[in-house]
Amino acid sequence: MLFKGSHILSIDQFSLRDLQTLFTVSERMEPYAARRKMTRVLEGAILGNLFFEPSTRSRISFGAAFDRLGGSVRDTTGFQFSSMAKGESLYDTSRVVSGYVDVIVMRHPTIGSVREFAAATRIPVISGGDGAGEHPTQALLDLYTIRKELKRELNELRGLKIAMVGDLKFGRTVHSLIKLLSLLEEVHFTLVAPLELQLPADLVESARERGHNVSATTNLHEGISDVDVIYTTRLQQERFTSEAEAEKFRGSYSITAAIYASFCKPGTVLMHPLPRDSRTGAMELHDDLNSNPQLAIFRQADNGIPVRMALFALVLGVEHRVEETARDVSWYVPESINMN
Amino acid sequence: MLFKGSHILSIDQFSLRDLQTLFTVSERMEPYAARRKMTRVLEGAILGNLFFEPSTRSRISFGAAFDRLGGSVRDTTGFQFSSMAKGESLYDTSRVVSGYVDVIVMRHPTIGSVREFAAATRIPVISGGDGAGEHPTQALLDLYTIRKELKRELNELRGLKIAMVGDLKFGRTVHSLIKLLSLLEEVHFTLVAPLELQLPADLVESARERGHNVSATTNLHEGISDVDVIYTTRLQQERFTSEAEAEKFRGSYSITAAIYASFCKPGTVLMHPLPRDSRTGAMELHDDLNSNPQLAIFRQADNGIPVRMALFALVLGVEHRVEETARDVSWYVPESINMN
Amino acid sequence: MLFKGSHILSIDQFSLRDLQTLFTVSERMEPYAARRKMTRVLEGAILGNLFFEPSTRSRISFGAAFDRLGGSVRDTTGFQFSSMAKGESLYDTSRVVSGYVDVIVMRHPTIGSVREFAAATRIPVISGGDGAGEHPTQALLDLYTIRKELKRELNELRGLKIAMVGDLKFGRTVHSLIKLLSLLEEVHFTLVAPLELQLPADLVESARERGHNVSATTNLHEGISDVDVIYTTRLQQERFTSEAEAEKFRGSYSITAAIYASFCKPGTVLMHPLPRDSRTGAMELHDDLNSNPQLAIFRQADNGIPVRMALFALVLGVEHRVEETARDVSWYVPESINMN
Repeated sequence: MLFKGSHILSIDQFSLRDLQTLFTVSERMEPYAARRKMTRVLEGAILGNLFFEPSTRSRISFGAAFDRLGGSVRDTTGFQFSSMAKGESLYDTSRVVSGYVDVIVMRHPTIGSVREFAAATRIPVISGGDGAGEHPTQALLDLYTIRKELKRELNELRGLKIAMVGDLKFGRTVHSLIKLLSLLEEVHFTLVAPLELQLPADLVESARERGHNVSATTNLHEGISDVDVIYTTRLQQERFTSEAEAEKFRGSYSITAAIYASFCKPGTVLMHPLPRDSRTGAMELHDDLNSNPQLAIFRQADNGIPVRMALFALVLGVEHRVEETARDVSWYVPESINMN
Repeated sequence: MLFKGSHILSIDQFSLRDLQTLFTVSERMEPYAARRKMTRVLEGAILGNLFFEPSTRSRISFGAAFDRLGGSVRDTTGFQFSSMAKGESLYDTSRVVSGYVDVIVMRHPTIGSVREFAAATRIPVISGGDGAGEHPTQALLDLYTIRKELKRELNELRGLKIAMVGDLKFGRTVHSLIKLLSLLEEVHFTLVAPLELQLPADLVESARERGHNVSATTNLHEGISDVDVIYTTRLQQERFTSEAEAEKFRGSYSITAAIYASFCKPGTVLMHPLPRDSRTGAMELHDDLNSNPQLAIFRQADNGIPVRMALFALVLGVEHRVEETARDVSWYVPESINMN
Repeated sequence: MLFKGSHILSIDQFSLRDLQTLFTVSERMEPYAARRKMTRVLEGAILGNLFFEPSTRSRISFGAAFDRLGGSVRDTTGFQFSSMAKGESLYDTSRVVSGYVDVIVMRHPTIGSVREFAAATRIPVISGGDGAGEHPTQALLDLYTIRKELKRELNELRGLKIAMVGDLKFGRTVHSLIKLLSLLEEVHFTLVAPLELQLPADLVESARERGHNVSATTNLHEGISDVDVIYTTRLQQERFTSEAEAEKFRGSYSITAAIYASFCKPGTVLMHPLPRDSRTGAMELHDDLNSNPQLAIFRQADNGIPVRMALFALVLGVEHRVEETARDVSWYVPESINMN
């Protein structure tokens, strides 16, 4: 019952036991996410899906997860809550919206604003990301994906080897995932990044203090050669000291089918928080990997639905009642989804 | 049955008896607004929530009210209906949309446009505000709030003392509320505004003609010292003749905890249509009042849900069937909302 | 069962037999579109209503059709899918969204993009228009309207006389409708357009090859004098060689009540895909025709609901189950809609 009525603002809130609870409930959501079954457990409840910064993918994912539980969704997609532009405080906005809906997902460009918003409201708030701050549900679905891809329970992930590749300095999804993985035991992190974009030292330190093994390299081929999972992120060109510098690295951190075949152990799982940059010259995960069964990036995105359904069910305290209104789905669902 | 099939375009449509009907139905909506119960009475019906001018708060309030009745909502949030930009008349837009949905809420920046739209449609239209024109549902929920805060029926409000503070010249919510209150008997209006922003003379005259007492002052402390309700609005700086003039008044019309303690009778209710301006220098209702139990501004916003639910139920003729599909709510609702 | 799981991307997919199936199902949707009945057959299913180009009317029409089947709708109204702006390919976007929802409607400003999107997804995609490309559901509801207005089955439309008026060069709805009508027998097309805006020659040729009669004129009065149906479209001023040229034609292609009375056979049906341009000087169908019972343009727009409901029901394979959850509507519906 830990989550009932809680805000979900940071992965720092989660103990290993909480993660186990969350993932157990997420698994029970799989038949609904795969559209073998439907439920109406949240019929009558309303989600306020407040995106003060555009993020269509996340917004649809949260909204669809709430729909799959039978609830209704009110969306805000504008850059600005119009009344905020007239000088309304986050306190007022938050208090008012809590009179309209039952749970809020909020994304905002300013770090700390989701927490400020949550402090003023009367209902559970789930963060959808606050600028350079956290995007906790992404990290949760990332860990859920690792567990599912490797077919191991959390307590069986001891000794996991994972390479984090790309912009490790600014990539908030990488930071959050490292923190979550640090709740496990004996994780081997290989950090693959150019010198300009190394993981902040405090994150390295705290992982080591918890007994994990952290090594770093600027060499992609070396870094990905002996791991279970490769977690890649976008290399952002504007963060380099010069165009030439960016050019040099860009090629070096692009994983292609040929590189995968040459350097990776069979079965190495490829992950990415998406969107991946498919423009020529970017391609952190090349399109020629699209038919590789170990490319888990779309299953990873799919996992957003059961994990977010589980979070909604838990914070609204209906996780034990989901099956009560369950029915088989009668509309056409392609086998590729239904057999998920 | 007065409201069935009606448009709701102006508070001029309402007799005292209509208000009693509306508020009786609104009270029956309270358990649904407070999420003790849910109903599906409008399951299958569709609201066209057409906001041709952004107003996130009002849009979500109308949409959530319709959701709480079990209906579906189609939203338009853009500044421009795209086909209007191609020369489509309001007549055509209106007629077409009435083929898609069952009731329309429309907000538009141009005065008169909601009425023009309503004239062409085949289904009930509820105004969500038309520029400098009316925003009738705001005035209705304001009056509902006064009645509820003072725990008196409409016919027991004889002798009500209310101070209207701020921009009384342009504030459309003030104008509408004065008209509605004029349906009662022996109301004492105290108008507190700088000379530049006095209430239009015709409104003063018509209130007096109906037997009400209207006095005016530029002095805040004097104006709020012996009233049941203070209704404040934003002072808009750009409407003053000079920066210095604005500066002079701004301080004078800001109500703080200290001013409330020094000048107001115990129990004086503080209202505001929101958004209030919480930027330094504005603060028509200072943040230090937030813990004052007589600060009714958020309960006032909350009241938008039962009042708008009642309007939808009445114009769609289902007000007597709301309880038929009622069920207890099974998801987590904080006590601060549920005990409302 | 032809449609189950199919994409709906082009009217070229449709045989005469498919059209008959579609229209039979569309007719069964009429009581729901006219709000005499409601159904919950798609309760639990989610539509991804992805409008990467604004088209409020089409977006609401698709969304409302899905609502009327009991489903939920996730909308995108922005010009840009935010992750596309970060370099995400249509392939990735498509694959990801198919993990969230059950069927997608997509409108996009770039020709071919809807087809590219559909190729990557795992769920049915219905085109809502791709720039200068096709807008197939418009053509389908146009043909449905002709059949319904003339009260003849498709196989009874042999010998139909139809005038197409306006911008026949660029008007994609005209092109699609001509192709669909070409599936019938012995259609007499009269093409009424200025020389600058004639129908592309290949379309004329292929209609003739299928045995239809195609004649062309620049004279409006002559062209509309002996037909069953007049299908008008907007004349777009920017496509003329000079302002003076545009001015000359604009007047010549405007149908007014007086012109209708003087030149049209009694009973001639007036159609238009909307929006019509009601600004002075445009008026391809003058406002003074609004009370003419043969003005079918709004009934044509209304027909978007049953036709789109039928498409959703068919691609999701629930067309035989719509009645199972049918109930009478209990909310107020104006006679003008209910008796439709």
